[in-house]
Amino acid sequence: MAEKVTISTVARHAQVSRQTVSNVLNAPHIVRDETRRRVEEAIAALGYRANQAARQMRTGRSRLVAVRIEPTRDGINGSVLDRFLHGLTETADAAGYRVLLYTARDDGHEIDTYDDLLGAYDLDGFVLTGTDHGDPRTAWLAERNVPFVTFGRPWDAAEAHPWVDVDGAAGTAQATQRLLDTGHRRIGFIGWPAGSGVGDDRRSGWRTVMAAAGLAGAAPHRETEDGIAHGEREMRALLAADEPPTAVVCVSDSLALGALQAVRAVAASVAVVGFDDTPVAAVVGLTSVSQPLAAAAARCFELLTGLLDGQPTDPHVLLSPTLVLRHTA
Amino acid sequence: MAEKVTISTVARHAQVSRQTVSNVLNAPHIVRDETRRRVEEAIAALGYRANQAARQMRTGRSRLVAVRIEPTRDGINGSVLDRFLHGLTETADAAGYRVLLYTARDDGHEIDTYDDLLGAYDLDGFVLTGTDHGDPRTAWLAERNVPFVTFGRPWDAAEAHPWVDVDGAAGTAQATQRLLDTGHRRIGFIGWPAGSGVGDDRRSGWRTVMAAAGLAGAAPHRETEDGIAHGEREMRALLAADEPPTAVVCVSDSLALGALQAVRAVAASVAVVGFDDTPVAAVVGLTSVSQPLAAAAARCFELLTGLLDGQPTDPHVLLSPTLVLRHTA
Repeated sequence: MAEKVTISTVARHAQVSRQTVSNVLNAPHIVRDETRRRVEEAIAALGYRANQAARQMRTGRSRLVAVRIEPTRDGINGSVLDRFLHGLTETADAAGYRVLLYTARDDGHEIDTYDDLLGAYDLDGFVLTGTDHGDPRTAWLAERNVPFVTFGRPWDAAEAHPWVDVDGAAGTAQATQRLLDTGHRRIGFIGWPAGSGVGDDRRSGWRTVMAAAGLAGAAPHRETEDGIAHGEREMRALLAADEPPTAVVCVSDSLALGALQAVRAVAASVAVVGFDDTPVAAVVGLTSVSQPLAAAAARCFELLTGLLDGQPTDPHVLLSPTLVLRHTA
Repeated sequence: MAEKVTISTVARHAQVSRQTVSNVLNAPHIVRDETRRRVEEAIAALGYRANQAARQMRTGRSRLVAVRIEPTRDGINGSVLDRFLHGLTETADAAGYRVLLYTARDDGHEIDTYDDLLGAYDLDGFVLTGTDHGDPRTAWLAERNVPFVTFGRPWDAAEAHPWVDVDGAAGTAQATQRLLDTGHRRIGFIGWPAGSGVGDDRRSGWRTVMAAAGLAGAAPHRETEDGIAHGEREMRALLAADEPPTAVVCVSDSLALGALQAVRAVAASVAVVGFDDTPVAAVVGLTSVSQPLAAAAARCFELLTGLLDGQPTDPHVLLSPTLVLRHTA
């Protein structure tokens, strides 16, 4: 494979210093005409591409946006952020931007990674996913005036930055209302442990609708980590109660799939609704709340470029999910 | 939000030209001591980060690798490349590299995108996915001496570049052998239309094992585009034959899931094996051939960095898949 054409290659070919090549690219007016022509001829002959540095000096933009890619988990809920990433990349591409990926084990490592990334690439900004209470990442970026947008609202009042989120409470409220409309009265909820912004928000939609219907006393709920096996276990616990629910709303499709297995194992007739409308939900016929992920990604990108263009620094967008009806509710 | 600290900001603060700042970063020996100190103090005071350009001038590496992200399809087979992408990003991160994403509607647009990307960013190379006969992308990159590795072997003899692939024929051969070992004799295949490298390879594994067992006459096969509905239709056609198969190997999990629906709709007892071991397969209990995607991604990255280090330009790695046994076979 032939050598890559770099500034050094051009310099050797034109018999000038690398600095002179750099000058031709970045400050051509300070270079003598004859020298400039020789360098330009070498650039053309070698097919050298003025790199990002030269371009960025002219535009002040790198057109690079960084986003974290999560580790592959059970492949069910993980697909949500993959779909967000597809949407973000497509929107960015259409605007001439590219998406740079990074990984991190946790928020602390993510902050270390910001430092590395900002040192190595001249990024225009970050799109953060998965916000939660006391998020250290937003504070770190804000202190350093690094532009960023979050997919996920700030869960603490003090934060003010652009964000896009999906109204989880509205999604579970729709699901619960649908179950009430089809005659259910004892409607349970299988959620994540209290304290997570997203999980508490989703639980609140179910709780509010049940309370408004005067059914707060017929609303058993369970809390558990995510996963099919956990959903199955918690559903078994609900079914073992004296008055088991006739329907259950779950905070995720993983938990709902587990709940469905528990229901089918005892041939019970219990409606189940999941959250996230994952590909697995479509295949098994699970009714589920669907997030508009492509729209969310597009709005995140718009807010970030708006920020770079000097637009207000704290717009926010709350999108509504929709309930996708299938066989289970 | 405060202004981003750029070379211009540093220049203003230190009361020198941008070129002088650039010189301090890239050729400090040509700058007077007193001026260099002033610029270095400004860099420290403002927290300016020497960007990619400066770094790259020293190392000759951008540590950026580009990979295409496919449009979201049915979320079943699409998850394969998402898992590859996770693996690639994690391996790259561990080596201090980052992954840049791009999209493209087809191979022609992908080539246009190469041109854009090479013009805008000083990429170290590309990881291409989804190779097929007469691939125009590899020829384009090879002509321009752009380093690249493909996940997927070259399907034409003339190509010689580093590649990593998974032995699809070995996967369907394992599946077919398993079915023979458990007593099946009439074993069908639902594949993609003849002519695709990957599809023909997977079909050949089934065909070879059936022929070796003297059962070429008991091996009905169907060809169709991918998708659950197509799988269901083709399985119905197989079941309607005079001597329907008692087992079927499918070229993808999407087709296998459709086949499974057709089997269950008529309460038939037909074993079904899919390909790709997607999350949906795990949930519905589908036996499926699993590709070692994290390993494939890691090897792709190793071959690409090997190429940059001047190692041989045409190594290749063929990985073996494994059969994951569940309820359907």
